[in-house]
Amino acid sequence: MSRYAFGVDIGGTTVKMGLFDKDGCVLDKWEIPTVKENDGAAILPDVAESILAKMKEKGIDKDDVAGVGVGVPGAVTESGYMVGGAVNLGWGPFNPAIVLNGYLDMPVKVANDANVAAFGELWQGGGKGYDNMVAVTLGTGVGGGIIVNGHILTGASGGGGEIGHIQVEDNETESCNCKKKGCLEQYASATGIARLAKRRLEKDDKPSVLRKGPVSAKTVFDAVKCGDEIAVEVAEEFGEYLGKGLATVACVVNPEVFVIGGGVSKAGEVLFQYIEPAFKRHVFAPCGNVRFALAALGNDAGIYGAAALILNQDENGSKGND
Amino acid sequence: MSRYAFGVDIGGTTVKMGLFDKDGCVLDKWEIPTVKENDGAAILPDVAESILAKMKEKGIDKDDVAGVGVGVPGAVTESGYMVGGAVNLGWGPFNPAIVLNGYLDMPVKVANDANVAAFGELWQGGGKGYDNMVAVTLGTGVGGGIIVNGHILTGASGGGGEIGHIQVEDNETESCNCKKKGCLEQYASATGIARLAKRRLEKDDKPSVLRKGPVSAKTVFDAVKCGDEIAVEVAEEFGEYLGKGLATVACVVNPEVFVIGGGVSKAGEVLFQYIEPAFKRHVFAPCGNVRFALAALGNDAGIYGAAALILNQDENGSKGND
Repeated sequence: MSRYAFGVDIGGTTVKMGLFDKDGCVLDKWEIPTVKENDGAAILPDVAESILAKMKEKGIDKDDVAGVGVGVPGAVTESGYMVGGAVNLGWGPFNPAIVLNGYLDMPVKVANDANVAAFGELWQGGGKGYDNMVAVTLGTGVGGGIIVNGHILTGASGGGGEIGHIQVEDNETESCNCKKKGCLEQYASATGIARLAKRRLEKDDKPSVLRKGPVSAKTVFDAVKCGDEIAVEVAEEFGEYLGKGLATVACVVNPEVFVIGGGVSKAGEVLFQYIEPAFKRHVFAPCGNVRFALAALGNDAGIYGAAALILNQDENGSKGND
Repeated sequence: MSRYAFGVDIGGTTVKMGLFDKDGCVLDKWEIPTVKENDGAAILPDVAESILAKMKEKGIDKDDVAGVGVGVPGAVTESGYMVGGAVNLGWGPFNPAIVLNGYLDMPVKVANDANVAAFGELWQGGGKGYDNMVAVTLGTGVGGGIIVNGHILTGASGGGGEIGHIQVEDNETESCNCKKKGCLEQYASATGIARLAKRRLEKDDKPSVLRKGPVSAKTVFDAVKCGDEIAVEVAEEFGEYLGKGLATVACVVNPEVFVIGGGVSKAGEVLFQYIEPAFKRHVFAPCGNVRFALAALGNDAGIYGAAALILNQDENGSKGND
């Protein structure tokens, strides 16, 4: 068996890369800039060049490399095709797995970056030891990655796990980025939490530390930890919406664990105090036996998950596209 | 390769059974009564006896039988264990696949009856030709069966696809059977449609053919076809809730097709007139490219899907428990 794999996480600014051994230990990690000029035509050649240079540096033969896993910021079908390309990279529709294979002559697997990060958390992070997991990323938006029996749920057009756009409020007046109203993302993302806080602050004059500076998800949960009553109300509203949304997810895919990541998750375990009671109130009981855990790999989840596309395959076949 | 498989669908009153060839044609089908006395202890021995008798009648050797697939009315984990037993049969928790294998000495696979029916529709019914499907059963309740990449999504505790308990209304005052309020089942099941109709009729005195006899999902959709205005309003309300619920399902699992079955589906294509526009309004656009089809196998979906547990396996491994 080959001893190494590369994990590559292509973002809008940098490409994160990692060299892993087959036991899932990261041996080296580095970044290269994402060159978006000319519709991002240089990105994959740059990735290939960097991998080949790293192999030379470490004295690794091609035969020692099981393959290269790649996370990309766009929808990817099971076959590796990006129907909608990747707007952030300037990419149109194509199959990056085939192209990168053309540069490297090594097995390449490509999947959506949110799904890949989820797969990383399953392999070596907050979801380790589970087979059925939903990763929930609370960042600028709300993303999701669903793992069923150890496999990424890609969906027919790469849209599996788009849980940020579950409708959780019928009476919202403002629009989500997706143009709909009442999406989970409007209440549980970093932006959404700040929005809830601003709304609450405008409601009356009740004193709060949140009135003393810019309001963000971080200042809200910092204030929650200090017992600020307004912040606690905001956290309860956040928890109600997220708990309700995850209750819906639970009765569709029935996971063992929710792994909460993204910037908002830096608030830590305190989040669960607000999410779990609301989840229990809303969930269909037979699907309610779900644990909540924090994501553990931070910004490295992508390179771990990408490497896992190559290394974490079971005897039943591939976990990504071939 | 073995030439035959048996499909068994165990219900609360009868056990439906079918003999299939490997191409998915049903060669014979029959029923035996479900004997529920003594905690349903006789059910599996009766099934075994009936299968062995049929083999004798047809002159089929054990070597010619690939196995026996079974749908049961309860949650079944991937390993075939029924954590909660089957209340309708008097069964406590146990592994019916192992027990039936003990009687037959042939491969046996067991799965939840709703999931099995979905698998049947995928194999030879309304979902034929698709790999990613959600079967929606609109009967006394609302059930679901999710197929991802040709595999049943069982869920961690067998609760995958419980879409009837997605909350679609925040302001419901009556309780669902599950004790929650505002579940999809309260609006889109046969019972739910009748409830919506009764509510609407009580609202004012507008004339309607629905005032002239008992109200049911059937009378509502019969009246819709005749242009009855009140019935159309009820159908729109039904469509709004179901469309909204399925939009949520679509952004979680991103299927290619919804296959609508159960008693309500006898109304036919007219249902889609009310479901699809609401679905389009609510769905997150990247997950919105989904077709709607009617279930095609009726009450036989269970025996087809059960046989498919045995016959419809790909090279990547089992689609049910082993």
